Amino acid sequence: MKNNKVIIVGGGTGSRMGTDIPKQFLLLRGKPVIMHTIERFRNFSSSLEITVVLPKNQFEYWHELCKQHKFNIPHKLVEGGITRFASVKNGINSISEAGLVAIHDAVRPLVSIDTIKNCFKEAEEKGNCIPVLEIKESIRKVDSEGKTKSVERKDYYTVQTPQVFEYSILKRAYEQPYQASFTDDSSVVENIGIKINISMGNSGNIKITIKEDLQIAEVLLK
Amino acid sequence: MKNNKVIIVGGGTGSRMGTDIPKQFLLLRGKPVIMHTIERFRNFSSSLEITVVLPKNQFEYWHELCKQHKFNIPHKLVEGGITRFASVKNGINSISEAGLVAIHDAVRPLVSIDTIKNCFKEAEEKGNCIPVLEIKESIRKVDSEGKTKSVERKDYYTVQTPQVFEYSILKRAYEQPYQASFTDDSSVVENIGIKINISMGNSGNIKITIKEDLQIAEVLLK
Repeated sequence: MKNNKVIIVGGGTGSRMGTDIPKQFLLLRGKPVIMHTIERFRNFSSSLEITVVLPKNQFEYWHELCKQHKFNIPHKLVEGGITRFASVKNGINSISEAGLVAIHDAVRPLVSIDTIKNCFKEAEEKGNCIPVLEIKESIRKVDSEGKTKSVERKDYYTVQTPQVFEYSILKRAYEQPYQASFTDDSSVVENIGIKINISMGNSGNIKITIKEDLQIAEVLLK
Repeated sequence: MKNNKVIIVGGGTGSRMGTDIPKQFLLLRGKPVIMHTIERFRNFSSSLEITVVLPKNQFEYWHELCKQHKFNIPHKLVEGGITRFASVKNGINSISEAGLVAIHDAVRPLVSIDTIKNCFKEAEEKGNCIPVLEIKESIRKVDSEGKTKSVERKDYYTVQTPQVFEYSILKRAYEQPYQASFTDDSSVVENIGIKINISMGNSGNIKITIKEDLQIAEVLLK
């Protein structure tokens, strides 16, 4: 557990939510989403070093929010990039060395301590681990002609965060040029030939991307 | 639109919800989930013939609920089978003839009129149509060795109901013996060589399978 870190990535600008407030700052039970997120990691381990990545133009607002909410969990603040890939890379480059590094979406405030714990534990043994969920609905795959075909849903998982990797592997992976197929950190790491390990996440670990998600998060917090 | 029908399938026995009340009868805004579902189809079209499939031992309770809630939307009641496949088959066999038949989960009370309308419209032209949603999260596929690999999420859809088919095709499809790969009606129909058409569903069209879903449905109803 020594020298482990988490990079919490907040890239939202507010446009997609139809609001001026970036989604990581929206209030969940009266407190900005990202503060819930940071607290979950602090509750997991008081020795975990926390880095928060935000767009530069949100720094002042964030400092303001911290004052206003008397938020005093220590964290380093790093400037985000234009894409999530660039933001994560900035976060990694701000770290000089580490054991394991977790990358987590700022807008997943309901990650459970168990999910975090299991990912770190598995990564401790195997070098990396990401949380996944089984897919409850039937799924269909688009073929080369644009037709869809029913596929076995038990062969698929949806992917959450935190995604935990050995620092050196993660750093090397993020030296690659960006590709459109990089939809999460594990796809970046996988692309340098590393096998990705999975453990079960928690179904409440939703990503707040539309207004309804925030209301659903309120329900799930109860 | 003439002679079109919907079969609403309620198979829940209550065990999975950790409650004694079958999930289709749980109260959503004070009214059983399945009544919301039936109303959606009635609101779509007053000429649509409605068949409800329920386990035999729930008939009495259902009649009781209808009295209690003064629920008077005309519908035929058909006895369910042991599996969803058997229940749908019973529903189909209770229909002598039809134009298009929609199969819908009783526990999807938040299907939008647009979703229903689009599926019927597309099926009118092409013989069948099912509502699907794009997958928001990254996904991974399990390979033959049990390892997972990142796959393009844009190549996949999750599947909802109502799934609408020409009566004759649907009837023929359900004469096949049951297979474990039949996870929804479209996979049954596809297995007799029919191409399945898709249209976009509504993200609120969730399936009530655990307690939290009911609370989320309350949020989405607002």
